[in-house]
Amino acid sequence: MYFRVDNEQVVPVDKNTFLEERNVVAVFNHKQWKEEKKLQNKYQLTQSIENVHFCKVERHIGYLFGTCYVPIPKEHMSHKEFVFYIIEGKIIFIDDSNTIVDEINRIAQEKIRRKYSLERLLYDVLINLIENDLLFLELIEQEISKIEEYVLKGTLDNFNTKMLEIKKMIAKLYRYYSQMTDLGEEILDNEEEFFEKEGYATFRVFTDRASRLQNETQTLREYAMQVQDVYQSEIGIRQNNVMKVLTIVTTIFLPLTLIVGWYGMNFVYMPEISWRFGYPMVILISALIVIGSLLLFKKKKYW
Amino acid sequence: MYFRVDNEQVVPVDKNTFLEERNVVAVFNHKQWKEEKKLQNKYQLTQSIENVHFCKVERHIGYLFGTCYVPIPKEHMSHKEFVFYIIEGKIIFIDDSNTIVDEINRIAQEKIRRKYSLERLLYDVLINLIENDLLFLELIEQEISKIEEYVLKGTLDNFNTKMLEIKKMIAKLYRYYSQMTDLGEEILDNEEEFFEKEGYATFRVFTDRASRLQNETQTLREYAMQVQDVYQSEIGIRQNNVMKVLTIVTTIFLPLTLIVGWYGMNFVYMPEISWRFGYPMVILISALIVIGSLLLFKKKKYW
Amino acid sequence: MYFRVDNEQVVPVDKNTFLEERNVVAVFNHKQWKEEKKLQNKYQLTQSIENVHFCKVERHIGYLFGTCYVPIPKEHMSHKEFVFYIIEGKIIFIDDSNTIVDEINRIAQEKIRRKYSLERLLYDVLINLIENDLLFLELIEQEISKIEEYVLKGTLDNFNTKMLEIKKMIAKLYRYYSQMTDLGEEILDNEEEFFEKEGYATFRVFTDRASRLQNETQTLREYAMQVQDVYQSEIGIRQNNVMKVLTIVTTIFLPLTLIVGWYGMNFVYMPEISWRFGYPMVILISALIVIGSLLLFKKKKYW
Amino acid sequence: MYFRVDNEQVVPVDKNTFLEERNVVAVFNHKQWKEEKKLQNKYQLTQSIENVHFCKVERHIGYLFGTCYVPIPKEHMSHKEFVFYIIEGKIIFIDDSNTIVDEINRIAQEKIRRKYSLERLLYDVLINLIENDLLFLELIEQEISKIEEYVLKGTLDNFNTKMLEIKKMIAKLYRYYSQMTDLGEEILDNEEEFFEKEGYATFRVFTDRASRLQNETQTLREYAMQVQDVYQSEIGIRQNNVMKVLTIVTTIFLPLTLIVGWYGMNFVYMPEISWRFGYPMVILISALIVIGSLLLFKKKKYW
Amino acid sequence: MYFRVDNEQVVPVDKNTFLEERNVVAVFNHKQWKEEKKLQNKYQLTQSIENVHFCKVERHIGYLFGTCYVPIPKEHMSHKEFVFYIIEGKIIFIDDSNTIVDEINRIAQEKIRRKYSLERLLYDVLINLIENDLLFLELIEQEISKIEEYVLKGTLDNFNTKMLEIKKMIAKLYRYYSQMTDLGEEILDNEEEFFEKEGYATFRVFTDRASRLQNETQTLREYAMQVQDVYQSEIGIRQNNVMKVLTIVTTIFLPLTLIVGWYGMNFVYMPEISWRFGYPMVILISALIVIGSLLLFKKKKYW
Ligand SMILES: [Mg+2]
Ligand SMILES: [Mg+2]
Ligand SMILES: [Mg+2]
Ligand SMILES: [Mg+2]
Ligand SMILES: [Mg+2]
Ligand SMILES: [Mg+2]
Ligand SMILES: [Mg+2]
Ligand SMILES: [Mg+2]
Ligand SMILES: [Mg+2]
Ligand SMILES: [Mg+2]
Ligand SMILES: [Mg+2]
Ligand SMILES: [Mg+2]
Ligand SMILES: [Mg+2]
Ligand SMILES: [Mg+2]
Ligand SMILES: [Mg+2]
Ligand SMILES: [Mg+2]
Ligand SMILES: [Mg+2]
Ligand SMILES: [Mg+2]
Ligand SMILES: [Mg+2]
Ligand SMILES: [Mg+2]
Ligand SMILES: [Mg+2]
Ligand SMILES: [Mg+2]
Ligand SMILES: [Mg+2]
Ligand SMILES: [Mg+2]
Ligand SMILES: [Mg+2]
Ligand SMILES: [Mg+2]
Ligand SMILES: [Mg+2]
Ligand SMILES: [Mg+2]
Ligand SMILES: [Mg+2]
Ligand SMILES: [Mg+2]
Ligand SMILES: [Mg+2]
Repeated sequence: MYFRVDNEQVVPVDKNTFLEERNVVAVFNHKQWKEEKKLQNKYQLTQSIENVHFCKVERHIGYLFGTCYVPIPKEHMSHKEFVFYIIEGKIIFIDDSNTIVDEINRIAQEKIRRKYSLERLLYDVLINLIENDLLFLELIEQEISKIEEYVLKGTLDNFNTKMLEIKKMIAKLYRYYSQMTDLGEEILDNEEEFFEKEGYATFRVFTDRASRLQNETQTLREYAMQVQDVYQSEIGIRQNNVMKVLTIVTTIFLPLTLIVGWYGMNFVYMPEISWRFGYPMVILISALIVIGSLLLFKKKKYW
Repeated sequence: MYFRVDNEQVVPVDKNTFLEERNVVAVFNHKQWKEEKKLQNKYQLTQSIENVHFCKVERHIGYLFGTCYVPIPKEHMSHKEFVFYIIEGKIIFIDDSNTIVDEINRIAQEKIRRKYSLERLLYDVLINLIENDLLFLELIEQEISKIEEYVLKGTLDNFNTKMLEIKKMIAKLYRYYSQMTDLGEEILDNEEEFFEKEGYATFRVFTDRASRLQNETQTLREYAMQVQDVYQSEIGIRQNNVMKVLTIVTTIFLPLTLIVGWYGMNFVYMPEISWRFGYPMVILISALIVIGSLLLFKKKKYW
Repeated sequence: MYFRVDNEQVVPVDKNTFLEERNVVAVFNHKQWKEEKKLQNKYQLTQSIENVHFCKVERHIGYLFGTCYVPIPKEHMSHKEFVFYIIEGKIIFIDDSNTIVDEINRIAQEKIRRKYSLERLLYDVLINLIENDLLFLELIEQEISKIEEYVLKGTLDNFNTKMLEIKKMIAKLYRYYSQMTDLGEEILDNEEEFFEKEGYATFRVFTDRASRLQNETQTLREYAMQVQDVYQSEIGIRQNNVMKVLTIVTTIFLPLTLIVGWYGMNFVYMPEISWRFGYPMVILISALIVIGSLLLFKKKKYW
Repeated sequence: MYFRVDNEQVVPVDKNTFLEERNVVAVFNHKQWKEEKKLQNKYQLTQSIENVHFCKVERHIGYLFGTCYVPIPKEHMSHKEFVFYIIEGKIIFIDDSNTIVDEINRIAQEKIRRKYSLERLLYDVLINLIENDLLFLELIEQEISKIEEYVLKGTLDNFNTKMLEIKKMIAKLYRYYSQMTDLGEEILDNEEEFFEKEGYATFRVFTDRASRLQNETQTLREYAMQVQDVYQSEIGIRQNNVMKVLTIVTTIFLPLTLIVGWYGMNFVYMPEISWRFGYPMVILISALIVIGSLLLFKKKKYW
Repeated sequence: MYFRVDNEQVVPVDKNTFLEERNVVAVFNHKQWKEEKKLQNKYQLTQSIENVHFCKVERHIGYLFGTCYVPIPKEHMSHKEFVFYIIEGKIIFIDDSNTIVDEINRIAQEKIRRKYSLERLLYDVLINLIENDLLFLELIEQEISKIEEYVLKGTLDNFNTKMLEIKKMIAKLYRYYSQMTDLGEEILDNEEEFFEKEGYATFRVFTDRASRLQNETQTLREYAMQVQDVYQSEIGIRQNNVMKVLTIVTTIFLPLTLIVGWYGMNFVYMPEISWRFGYPMVILISALIVIGSLLLFKKKKYW
């Protein structure tokens, strides 16, 4: 599909208009693009458009080549991808999903602001990709916060599984925003050559926004690490508690067991055995040991 | 409300003065701003002013757009927010609280210094936001210091809950000062276009102060991490102590229990049982074991 | 072997052509190079070409001197190495393997793109070294992911051995990509002097790609560290579980052992011994202790 | 007190000389400064000089404003402070201690080097503050080294208390040198305006020295962290040793206790009881268990 | 001793030649230098040359002042030191060892390359200091690698002592290369003033090499930290194993001890005692408990 960006409008045009005029946009899918040999030869657009792994913009002779690998926050670990060429006065998108076409149609239907330009359209497409990400980052923050609450209450199972998943998502997003920041900066560095002059750089706003999202993601990562540290600390605390129970039980029962074993000895000459108050005395000593131990542990703050 | 900044004074003015003259300031609330369609159209002020999450300044064609998200230190986790536009010779604040109006009135009543300017007014508003924050950072430092003291005395419960709360507040403040530093730098970069010349940049002082607060917050974060490390270390030390008690009790009582069990055996042919000094000998051996164990543990520095 | 780069072709040439013309390439092995004293003297090419440990480019008077130490991902811990000189209009490779010759032949056979240049040939040789590395990095990621899965299931032995090996490989690759990025930047800084003008720097693409691989390696390193942290955490969790078993067993059996020891005492005056329901009562108390302990541990979430 | 810096000398002067000439220095205490309203008004010196928390230099219109908060290494956690104004050709110090006056008198009595200047005097005052700090940093290093030795010998109590104190001192010094580096750079950036030309910047040497002290402090911090890691590791090792003692004791005595309990059973039909060699057999088995256990633990390197 | 650098040679000269000509070098020891008052006064060379702690170059009016503090890798924790002045056309070394003189003699005897210069001589002296350090860094790597092997086999004692020593050496070297990089950059910044023009900066090669050594040292540090982490992890694993032995022993023997205690009770009315198959039944139950426990622990992967 082909579009032209007028001063105030984005309108669909035919292929010839795209080839002959400036301020035009084309959107192909991969199959269509493979057949556009003539266009590829004219500008030497020889980059491989398979295996997109990064968001990046490369400077080649006569054009910029960009790829976008965009994680979809709501669908776990899935992504959408497209590539684009920026030639002087022309942008070519290659996209198998409908992301780009839908977006351009949305822009076309909007009441256009004055002095709309090709650069502005690219800016709108790109900034729309990260438009609502802050809300998603807040969802992740809430999820970590919920895990934190459970950890502090001591009732969380599968902490490591859950936290590692969140950390991997954060790492993925951090990498994405970091690349988006670089992509914006690369376009900023080259915009004078490919786009018409426009007082000030619109892409600076995009770059700053991507960079702020990167900082927010970094903050999330540090939050996750703090909760991880607390979890590690809680494991130690709980182990302390288990050990204290063990120590209390052992310290109370071993002396008593010794005493009762003592009077289970079969010595012939053992006066206490036949002493009238032998048994009551053992009862008394046992009670004293129990009470004494409990007081001692209480004093040592074992619980 | 509308104000004009004279060379020596800040005076309230009417709307027309604001629209026609330079060195003027307007303060709207959100509702008033929604109705100022004419003003918005004249300068194309189309930014969304809801959902403020950052302190930032964006450069747009013909104006700067700033948002401020200011944590209120004394009220836990609450904040105040406002946005502002800087157009050549004009500043528009949109603020639902009375922060800005109060601040401008305060400035208006002060004995104004010579060569007071629009830029200086913005500087005064912004620097007032962080004026007393150093005192609050010192309160946080004292709080960490108190926790540290308790940790070293071994009497602190709920360490993780308390420390995590402090760490979250520190992270929030670090992010805030970091954004304030960037905001100041952004205004510094653009001040020549929007403000009249003034020998030297007043915003440099603001930026440096925000940056110093950021460094102080970083120092606090490192302090908190050190206390966290000490706490982790103390958990290990206390566990060592618990284990030592368990080991001492076990090492003393298990041999004794073996001995008394030994002479509880019912073998018919067991000479010690009927030996006159069997029982005294067991008492002696037991005493030797207890004393020997205690000496051994003393030597091994078990307590 | 000697080659000349024409506008559209790479063709083998003889030694004289190499010495007299521009846009030429020579490939020697170490033995051949030692005999090229005349060439070495003419340009003062005195660098030691043994003991290559880095990828680097050094600026000397009249030429650039580069060394490449390239880890071979598939063959564990082995590497290939070569060095090169860039003189104005000439490149000399010294390479004992066939890497460079094979690569140049491959380029010679390809349908050459327009405006092929000496710089482009060096770019093609270097970028080919890192062309498929992203796939290898993904293999490492899968390996870490597999280890992670085992760790979370609690069935991994030899974790430290395996993880340390992976970490060492990652460190090696990180170092390699870091040096490659520097190497690309060094050539970028000096290309104007040694290569003919060419609109824009081709080496910028190489440098950016090396830098992205470095970032990916860094991401892998952080992933490995997260899995390491989880493993450390799992050791603590498992220890907690072992301790709980020990505590449960001890807490149930020590009181019972005390009771049975108690009625093993040989006191003459001990009424329960000859009481008709003494033995049933002991059975009852024992059952109550077992049930009570189990309920208590259940409530304390010991399993 | 007032001084003038001549080409070769620093001489006391009266107030009028200070007000009318260039290359002059004034030193006030806080009380005197409060009364110097005329001077303050002339240059608009309105900064608050209470509550000094940083070492910093701020650029204002017509002057530089500096504050110094200098920790005194030998007196634990105490500090001295002063502030200064740099106006063209004049420096004003405000200092309640005698630090500055003493320093200037010391400089005045020294055989002055050629081309002594106002800038040089400020440099001399500032560099004297950090002159001997390296020796103090070496004392800290020795202290950490001593703690390290004790940790490795396993004889250190109160490690956390001692180490935390050292770490806090290091953090304080790091912050101080970091601010001193910034202060030096700020003066470097502005010296052309306030001081007379002088071939090369003397403050570069100050800045580099402060920066080297900052690096040394960073090295100390890393050393402290390594010792902390070793301590943490030693806690684990010692716990291992305690657990081994517990395990050895338990493993030796529980089987023996079982055996002696076994032959304490009162079964009527229990042949070993009346067997002639029952008791010797038990003695033998017990000895074998003890020896076997000890050999096993020896083999497993339990000690 | 005095030398002059000709276009192709380094030749010894007398003192007058040194004082009057350019491209000359002097080497003093500390004692000789103290007597050279005239030289010191002429160029105002007033720096303290005692207490060298850094490698650094300071820019003073009319000259550069450098100090070198060089750790000697093979001799543990010892070092050599020298200082130097660079005046226009002259270098003065002050060195109590013979390092510098030996080095200059070695250079003098070498077949000199064309266009040898004073700058080149300084470069040769400095680069010779770090020439063979890479080999030493590889020795450290092998040492860490050996420790790693022992840790993974579980047979290493004194880990912390050994590792801390290595870490301290690494920190020392890191600091040294970091300072050497700065020193090279400082000379690079100032070479135009003190040395004759020479196409390109030779010191860039020195700086890059010092920087690569710094990176290698950083890699070593990270390797050491990884081995430290593995050691920490192994302590936890070994503790787990000790705890498992304790738990197995306790879980097997406590129930058996209960049973044998049970039938050691002296109740008069206790039917099993006089039951014909009481004793065989106890033997059977005991065997079942042992086998059951072992199977259970086997299933729970306790070994
Ligand atoms: Mg990046
Ligand atoms: Mg970051
Ligand atoms: Mg943060
Ligand atoms: Mg962590
Ligand atoms: Mg952390
Ligand atoms: Mg941040
Ligand atoms: Mg920032
Ligand atoms: Mg920081
Ligand atoms: Mg700090
Ligand atoms: Mg931590
Ligand atoms: Mg730390
Ligand atoms: Mg590097
Ligand atoms: Mg990254
Ligand atoms: Mg890095
Ligand atoms: Mg990452
Ligand atoms: Mg780790
Ligand atoms: Mg981490
Ligand atoms: Mg860590
Ligand atoms: Mg860390
Ligand atoms: Mg700083
Ligand atoms: Mg350093
Ligand atoms: Mg630092
Ligand atoms: Mg260091
Ligand atoms: Mg630490
Ligand atoms: Mg560390
Ligand atoms: Mg750490
Ligand atoms: Mg450094
Ligand atoms: Mg580094
Ligand atoms: Mg590395
Ligand atoms: Mg470590
Ligand atoms: Mg690490």
